[in-house]
Amino acid sequence: MTFAATILTLYPEMFPGPLGVSLAGRALSEGAWSLETVQIRDFAADKHRTVDDTPAGGGAGMVLKADVLAAAIDHGRLLQPRCPVLAMTPRGKPITQERIRELAAGPGATILCGRFEGFDERIFKGRDVEEVSLADIVLSGGEPAALAILDACIRLLPGVMGAPSSGAEESFEEGLLEYPQYTRPVEWEGRTIPEVLRSGDHAKIAAWRKAMSESDTRSRRPDLWERHGGARDRSASGARRDD
Amino acid sequence: MTFAATILTLYPEMFPGPLGVSLAGRALSEGAWSLETVQIRDFAADKHRTVDDTPAGGGAGMVLKADVLAAAIDHGRLLQPRCPVLAMTPRGKPITQERIRELAAGPGATILCGRFEGFDERIFKGRDVEEVSLADIVLSGGEPAALAILDACIRLLPGVMGAPSSGAEESFEEGLLEYPQYTRPVEWEGRTIPEVLRSGDHAKIAAWRKAMSESDTRSRRPDLWERHGGARDRSASGARRDD
Repeated sequence: MTFAATILTLYPEMFPGPLGVSLAGRALSEGAWSLETVQIRDFAADKHRTVDDTPAGGGAGMVLKADVLAAAIDHGRLLQPRCPVLAMTPRGKPITQERIRELAAGPGATILCGRFEGFDERIFKGRDVEEVSLADIVLSGGEPAALAILDACIRLLPGVMGAPSSGAEESFEEGLLEYPQYTRPVEWEGRTIPEVLRSGDHAKIAAWRKAMSESDTRSRRPDLWERHGGARDRSASGARRDD
Repeated sequence: MTFAATILTLYPEMFPGPLGVSLAGRALSEGAWSLETVQIRDFAADKHRTVDDTPAGGGAGMVLKADVLAAAIDHGRLLQPRCPVLAMTPRGKPITQERIRELAAGPGATILCGRFEGFDERIFKGRDVEEVSLADIVLSGGEPAALAILDACIRLLPGVMGAPSSGAEESFEEGLLEYPQYTRPVEWEGRTIPEVLRSGDHAKIAAWRKAMSESDTRSRRPDLWERHGGARDRSASGARRDD
């Protein structure tokens, strides 16, 4: 089954961009995913092909018109009736690895990319669109966010990554940061690989990695740790702090 | 002054990618920012140009070697001695708009992009590198994250955005989500632009927008609202919930 990526954008030439190279690029040419871009401007109703207008109530920038957006979204739904429509907006729900996994397991994703001051808010009442935020930063448009979200989906598609197990132990897959990684040389600039990793004792290695995942999440990302329920349920490994 | 973007990557062909188009593309050709890519593989020491090796302790995937990364970072520092070095990694500190503003106000950014299972952890002890995470999702590599972070910086560079005030009222710039935006037509599919925005009363419009920013942040992003100190300091507007 091919994962169908459909991008509604004023800048179709930004795609596939980085997703035409390396892992995602190979997966695209092998048919693991497909890409279609839709030029929002094609749905403008007037002869000047106007897509935006000044904000009601005043202010800087321009706002994308609800009527034009609705026509572009409706076209996207015709192209891929089974795919959810995501709008990239800093007002949206922060993307999670859990949502990425759901998307990657589904038929695809139709992603609406804004520019300028954003979307006319009525589009989110008038159409079934999921408002999604990539990060708490302001981009010049939704396109770089769409590329990141697609990249995260594509690497999870069947057959795209070399080793199927690579997916499961990454950061966030268990609600924790990944443990630190090391590779040869054993000593580099006076720093050695932790001895446990060179022990060959698989049970000890697994326990060390789990403990590092937990302690790094606790110290670096207390927000993740709390959501994970770590503070409540993991009092045993929580004691590790005093080792 | 030109903002110097330097990217350490195994896939230099991914750049400028989407940043070669539109706002960022114009800014690049006008010299508001510059782009240099450094091929990490050029710093491999052996004749096979090896950049990675199997994880110490076992497991799937490959880990980027500390010696190769160090040589690439040292080269990046020679190219741009005044620029901070950021490594894109899900184990890093989540990027914020505040950090984006600091970066955009500085001489530039040197961004190290990983692939595979990530970096040999010793690189973060052996070199002064800021570990940065874009979002709580797993990408196939750091490149899409670097593109998003550069995009966020570039739009803040002097002269890049049309209206200078566009920067200040965006989401996150005040620690809150932006208020909803509307534009013509006044009525669309039976939905009208809120009356206050059509009143011409600038004080009332500003008050409405502030109240919407606050109530949308509180309901959509309680995490942001808490960091903003909203629950503590804003009891007056907090009462709006019952309006």
